[in-house]
Amino acid sequence: MTTSITVQQTARPDGLPTPADFELVRADAPDPAPGTALVENLYLSVDPYHREVMDEGPLHTPLEGRALGRVLASRDPGLAEGDLVFHRQGWRTHALVTLGVDGVRRIKAYDGVPLSAHLGILGGTGLTAYVALTRTLRLKPGEDLFVTAAAGGVGTAAGRIARLLGAGRITGSAGSAEKVDYLTGTVGYDAAFDYHDGPVGELLAKAAPAGVDAVVENVGGTHLEGAIAGLREGGRIAWVGAVAQYNSLAEPPAAPRNLYDVVSKSLRLEGVLVRNYRDVQGELEDFLVPHLRSGRVASDETVVDGFEGILDGFIGMLGGSNTGKLLIHVTD
Amino acid sequence: MTTSITVQQTARPDGLPTPADFELVRADAPDPAPGTALVENLYLSVDPYHREVMDEGPLHTPLEGRALGRVLASRDPGLAEGDLVFHRQGWRTHALVTLGVDGVRRIKAYDGVPLSAHLGILGGTGLTAYVALTRTLRLKPGEDLFVTAAAGGVGTAAGRIARLLGAGRITGSAGSAEKVDYLTGTVGYDAAFDYHDGPVGELLAKAAPAGVDAVVENVGGTHLEGAIAGLREGGRIAWVGAVAQYNSLAEPPAAPRNLYDVVSKSLRLEGVLVRNYRDVQGELEDFLVPHLRSGRVASDETVVDGFEGILDGFIGMLGGSNTGKLLIHVTD
Repeated sequence: MTTSITVQQTARPDGLPTPADFELVRADAPDPAPGTALVENLYLSVDPYHREVMDEGPLHTPLEGRALGRVLASRDPGLAEGDLVFHRQGWRTHALVTLGVDGVRRIKAYDGVPLSAHLGILGGTGLTAYVALTRTLRLKPGEDLFVTAAAGGVGTAAGRIARLLGAGRITGSAGSAEKVDYLTGTVGYDAAFDYHDGPVGELLAKAAPAGVDAVVENVGGTHLEGAIAGLREGGRIAWVGAVAQYNSLAEPPAAPRNLYDVVSKSLRLEGVLVRNYRDVQGELEDFLVPHLRSGRVASDETVVDGFEGILDGFIGMLGGSNTGKLLIHVTD
Repeated sequence: MTTSITVQQTARPDGLPTPADFELVRADAPDPAPGTALVENLYLSVDPYHREVMDEGPLHTPLEGRALGRVLASRDPGLAEGDLVFHRQGWRTHALVTLGVDGVRRIKAYDGVPLSAHLGILGGTGLTAYVALTRTLRLKPGEDLFVTAAAGGVGTAAGRIARLLGAGRITGSAGSAEKVDYLTGTVGYDAAFDYHDGPVGELLAKAAPAGVDAVVENVGGTHLEGAIAGLREGGRIAWVGAVAQYNSLAEPPAAPRNLYDVVSKSLRLEGVLVRNYRDVQGELEDFLVPHLRSGRVASDETVVDGFEGILDGFIGMLGGSNTGKLLIHVTD
């Protein structure tokens, strides 16, 4: 029998989670029932939103998340052995899936595109950035952009995609000097700053002295305040998350003190829920795959090798250890 | 000679202004220079935003605002004696204007429509409500609406116009039991509550238990927080002002503690600056005038009779004494 491993939460984290809040539970991998297929997971996505889930989700139940797997055995007529599938039963080594149920879909492997990209810039992370830029911000060529938590999965994808869309000056905030170098040296940001170096509003004013037209906001709190300060009249913010608050949900983060500028500068602040934009997936792939193949764009990723590293990888990500999308590589 | 009176600010108000912060300055009304016309003001608009101006505007200089006047003498070839004009040199009895300069335009008096409506539901107040509903919120028939400071100028106009646009349930907040009665009895709101009776979010949840799709927000602070709480997923807020903070600009008002719901409910919060929508004025009149004539819609106004009442009227408005748009009636 094949052994399957799931991650189950055993306690509610107080702030930053520790490995003691979880256990890895081993069992025989199940045989697929009629209509289902047994999938071996190749890559797993662990994301900031999982921290939020951990305050409310059930204990002693396998955690879930986006995953990319290969069919080992199938009794689903839509899936054949060896098929690559995207599904939502991550945080484990094996899963039973049914094509078309709960978002399960076959993945088309593109020559010259790493498989992991399907959980990175071609996955929910890239889709979030793409929807924020094209649907929420409706970014026009030449417009200047600010991205917070720019060195993360959504932030790197936003910088790459905005460049392809013809953005003007692209500025990012990040949590270390190394990440700042990574943004300007590797990802293609025009400017970046370490938010530890001062108030975000002041740092942004130095990095983008002429202001910005649009913001992809990942952090909340003082980052949102700085973004509001840096926007020109009529500017827009696509708010995709609030990493800063996931570890302190009991106490809401300080809201921006300059929120009234939304009126006085006629700003638009709009939340992005990527689950409402699944139909844009094909458009995203059509848009990005040629650039991924040509090498003009990369899927920025930090890959943790081996399923057993999932907890350290996740906890490290909450502390900001990764650049680009954090993925767990389970097997080839 | 005709005596002209202006209002000039002599001190910075600390919180709520008092008459001692101003003086009425009398002088001979000027003769029109070539290219200008002397206008006798009939109605003056005093608005919450004037309080904001008083923290930053110049002292010992005539205050300004929207006004409706009649040409007394003209050396502007575009204006004739007796013409009715809209202009922005209010807070005074007389003004020198030039057609087409600084928004000066001729007013078309409609049979069966009171002249004052041109500074009320047909003026900037009504235009603000109309733009918020049709451009910012893009309200669709059947959608449920919440309006804060609903008994004020923008709030009453928003309720009237939303009804004409086919809104579903319309709920308003106001500052007294009398205003609540006025909203449901006169303006046509389906439900209203006195915000002194509890947290706005709880009162809204009782008045609109199924939630709302859209909000016209006039107040800020806890009203904005309540509005965010009451919105369904995908809801929109047109933020047109923040009366609550005009008297305490030194200290920004408490921002909504639930601001993150903008992400988790995919809300849109958008500031409305009516000055960007002057071209909608004709559409507003085409839309409303037939209903004003038929009596289906009224321009809700509190009219202070006589120029000398302007300061008490303005200060009273900041304290919430008016229902509908506050206007100063200078002369017939």
